[in-house]
Amino acid sequence: MKKLRVGLAQINSTVGDLDGNATKILDYASRAAASGCDVVAFPELALTGYPPEDLVLRRRFILDNLGALNSVAERAPHDIALIVGFVNLDGDLYNAAAVVANRQIAGVYHKQLLPNYGVFDEKRYFQAGTEAPIFEIAGVRVGVTICEDIWRPDGPHRAEVQAGAEAIVNINGSPFHAGKLNFRESMISARASEESVTICYVNLVGGQDELVFDGGSMIFDERGGLLARAAQFEEELLVCDVNIDAIADARGQRERDNEAPARIVVSSTNVSYDKPAVAPRIAVRLDQDAEVYAALVTGIRDYWGKGGATSALVGLSGGVDSSLVAALAADALGSECVTGVAMPSRFSSEGSLADAQALAENLDVRLEMVPIEPAHEAYLQMLEQQFAGASPGLAAENLQARIRGNVLMALSNKSGAWVITTGNKSEYATGYCTLYGDMAGGYAALKDVPKTLVYRLSEYRNRVAGRDVIPRTVIEKPPSAELRPDQLDTDSLPPYEQLDPILELYVEGEQSLEEIVALGHDEAIARRVMALVDRSEYKRRQSPPGVKITPRAFGRDRRLPIANRYKGY
Amino acid sequence: MKKLRVGLAQINSTVGDLDGNATKILDYASRAAASGCDVVAFPELALTGYPPEDLVLRRRFILDNLGALNSVAERAPHDIALIVGFVNLDGDLYNAAAVVANRQIAGVYHKQLLPNYGVFDEKRYFQAGTEAPIFEIAGVRVGVTICEDIWRPDGPHRAEVQAGAEAIVNINGSPFHAGKLNFRESMISARASEESVTICYVNLVGGQDELVFDGGSMIFDERGGLLARAAQFEEELLVCDVNIDAIADARGQRERDNEAPARIVVSSTNVSYDKPAVAPRIAVRLDQDAEVYAALVTGIRDYWGKGGATSALVGLSGGVDSSLVAALAADALGSECVTGVAMPSRFSSEGSLADAQALAENLDVRLEMVPIEPAHEAYLQMLEQQFAGASPGLAAENLQARIRGNVLMALSNKSGAWVITTGNKSEYATGYCTLYGDMAGGYAALKDVPKTLVYRLSEYRNRVAGRDVIPRTVIEKPPSAELRPDQLDTDSLPPYEQLDPILELYVEGEQSLEEIVALGHDEAIARRVMALVDRSEYKRRQSPPGVKITPRAFGRDRRLPIANRYKGY
Repeated sequence: MKKLRVGLAQINSTVGDLDGNATKILDYASRAAASGCDVVAFPELALTGYPPEDLVLRRRFILDNLGALNSVAERAPHDIALIVGFVNLDGDLYNAAAVVANRQIAGVYHKQLLPNYGVFDEKRYFQAGTEAPIFEIAGVRVGVTICEDIWRPDGPHRAEVQAGAEAIVNINGSPFHAGKLNFRESMISARASEESVTICYVNLVGGQDELVFDGGSMIFDERGGLLARAAQFEEELLVCDVNIDAIADARGQRERDNEAPARIVVSSTNVSYDKPAVAPRIAVRLDQDAEVYAALVTGIRDYWGKGGATSALVGLSGGVDSSLVAALAADALGSECVTGVAMPSRFSSEGSLADAQALAENLDVRLEMVPIEPAHEAYLQMLEQQFAGASPGLAAENLQARIRGNVLMALSNKSGAWVITTGNKSEYATGYCTLYGDMAGGYAALKDVPKTLVYRLSEYRNRVAGRDVIPRTVIEKPPSAELRPDQLDTDSLPPYEQLDPILELYVEGEQSLEEIVALGHDEAIARRVMALVDRSEYKRRQSPPGVKITPRAFGRDRRLPIANRYKGY
Repeated sequence: MKKLRVGLAQINSTVGDLDGNATKILDYASRAAASGCDVVAFPELALTGYPPEDLVLRRRFILDNLGALNSVAERAPHDIALIVGFVNLDGDLYNAAAVVANRQIAGVYHKQLLPNYGVFDEKRYFQAGTEAPIFEIAGVRVGVTICEDIWRPDGPHRAEVQAGAEAIVNINGSPFHAGKLNFRESMISARASEESVTICYVNLVGGQDELVFDGGSMIFDERGGLLARAAQFEEELLVCDVNIDAIADARGQRERDNEAPARIVVSSTNVSYDKPAVAPRIAVRLDQDAEVYAALVTGIRDYWGKGGATSALVGLSGGVDSSLVAALAADALGSECVTGVAMPSRFSSEGSLADAQALAENLDVRLEMVPIEPAHEAYLQMLEQQFAGASPGLAAENLQARIRGNVLMALSNKSGAWVITTGNKSEYATGYCTLYGDMAGGYAALKDVPKTLVYRLSEYRNRVAGRDVIPRTVIEKPPSAELRPDQLDTDSLPPYEQLDPILELYVEGEQSLEEIVALGHDEAIARRVMALVDRSEYKRRQSPPGVKITPRAFGRDRRLPIANRYKGY
């Protein structure tokens, strides 16, 4: 039997860390060689990290990336081909994959379909490739494509198959959102069966600013059947034997197009038919809540790790958002690296403080207590004249939130720990949060998590622990900012079960008022919610980054003007 | 003599204000008709405002914009053709210009060259056009192009000229940076003489979030000579008679290409050869400092005006940055709408307070005084335990800046006035500013203004006033944040005369360390400055918007990852 042993190295690159990424690539190449792989593929732009953004516009960076590629080639194992994502400079800049064999760069593929929507800006950086070379590896004809290339049925893989490719290696930097893995697998399965070709899909893993890459690398055979799947959110070397004989059999059953053959680059390594078979792994897919939870943990872990910080501060109000954030931070960084800070005010209930204490105990994180009354009192005194004759109102509520923000930032400046903010997507959407107050911090862990999902993830965390790590009282009490006596979120917002579906339709779906109402939502409520979203754009623009987990997150994904008089409601 | 009377309506559109923009377009069309114009041209996307960003992704918005265009056509004056920028929906979305004549949409042009670099993301939104129709207006063949289309010598105007166009109308949304007008004029002059064609260039005017459009609309004749120029930073209807006979004469002197003629759309209005001539206006160009000052004033005026606010708060430290910002705000909004807030601490010098008072008096703005000592004391007491055993250091310095931020925001929440922050580009670049402290506010007026330019603009403002509105002591004292005794900026940063040129090379020029050193800068200093810039990215990501005045501003213009291990130094 003619077969190809493929290794998919699902690694966590770091943007800009050319040396570190090169070392990691060589390490995985050695492991793949030791596993008898004929070829090992790395994710899109594995050498530079993804997305490198405007670093690509620096000539020095491009040259350093080419230097790193040469150093990988020179030090690569002899008996295996490597497919490595890098930025090529060839008259213009290309999002590229190098095929390295026998310590040489045997050839290069340039990405043809450059995404420029959603979070992607690739037309800002790259010229589109035009050629679809075939690489002969261990006697097998392999076509290479990059990420977006495979999403269109008439992408470059088609020309490669027509030129005789028996396997397509597609290297990716495909950002996570909930449920995307299912969608990807259906699509890759369809592409494989459409062209009767094996598709080896390798994805990046890890967090980068607002994006998280979920891995889930996979191999589909020429009939669209799943051969192997790597874990989500973890580095892994996925090894699988691909039966090449079966491809010619499958093609015998179908119409062939006969177009001009692509250029063939021979980059053959040892042809090795007769290794003992490996049993490919098919990792179990995470369920819906587990994958979102893992994405949030990964986002925090890598933002800290790649940024060079180890510890985190979380303001603990006794509410569900800060409780979930503390749990995520403890899971990401270790509970010994997380400090909760309770900052009670004259409006804090006793229950809240007790809940914060119980949570800290359950998570085994340190709890500091800084009552904010002295500063609160001082500000009211300082501003007595300006506040005279009017009720303190919103200004005074925001003051308390900002005092807490200041306390956290002072502790951060003192200790070097970074502050994680606790606001959720429902709050960021409607502006139910205070600039420089509860929005102050380095990372907004729940920025893309609607409040109803905050509850679900809290229940999930307790379920996994087999006990109420997040106290039941926290989950069951009505949400309150506790900035004035007896305040409830529902004083200002519709109940979250009403709010979140409207937000999803408007923010993720770009639906109009009439479309939202046609789906059964109350017109007055929908109108109010849309107005709140529109008028809070200026706040979101100053918010910290946070992990994208929905199809449309605030930040680079949704780019709206601040000065904007359009009212679609 | 065959001539065309052209009106260029350099208007200030507001993003999203479809009705308001339509009304303004009709108003200018009537004025142009009353001036005997055969055609009046409006800027790029004049109907939607520019740039509309992701509003374009909402179907409702596109339909509303088409409705507004129809309403403009139905209500347009009869005896003039209109060229109106809008978003066309024709299978896909296009950045388009409609030619309206006789209350009909006679034809549409689709922008062909879509910029997707710098501040531009047009490939995110639009499909590129392919056709270059000619419009016959008052017996003259007119080609239409949009902005970027004219920047390439082989852009669509060439095909239009080859098909017989006698005048090209190029409609623009071209953002300002210092010195760009010169560059634009040389380029348009070259295009006109290259093709022996009159070019009528109309540009948007006004501020939109971080961009400011400077107007400076102009007409060049077929030999590249300037016929007319509108003012910068002001709305204007520029009217000019174009001699069409001269074009055939000029073309008789040169080689002609004979390509297939473009589609000709007849949209003729009255042919009118014999109106009394108008003397075209050639506005004087602003000098270097005047145009930057005007850009900053425009940015503030329109951010407030388009956002629906009228008044501003500025923290006055007695330093040059806050003094210049107060002057800009007073010039933009009127001194009666600006309130200065002095917030002295235990470290403020008496001179600083006196300087703030003198400035407020000179500008005739109200000054409030809120000493921050009570809150400062309260925080130190609250954090006594956490701060014990160590010098207060940076945490305590930041505390003071954040108390001031809180005071300003509390006053803002109370009064509805928006806070303008006072940090400059040198500070934002190096991170010499406090998140949620002096960075707190709605708009960062000097975000793209290096410190050395802050001094120049202060001198400029005094020169224009004919007196030291910004007190001489403010300009002459060494810069200090006054957050600890005897602090000077030079304790932390190189002198600004050394710092700013390095920042320009690194931030605007993307130069590497070796290139910067090769230009004569000290290697150790350059290395330190570059490191400061890199490690402050997270702060800038949470900063308020501010006017772009250089070729590369922080914000949408320069997109770097926060988690980034690349060290180009």
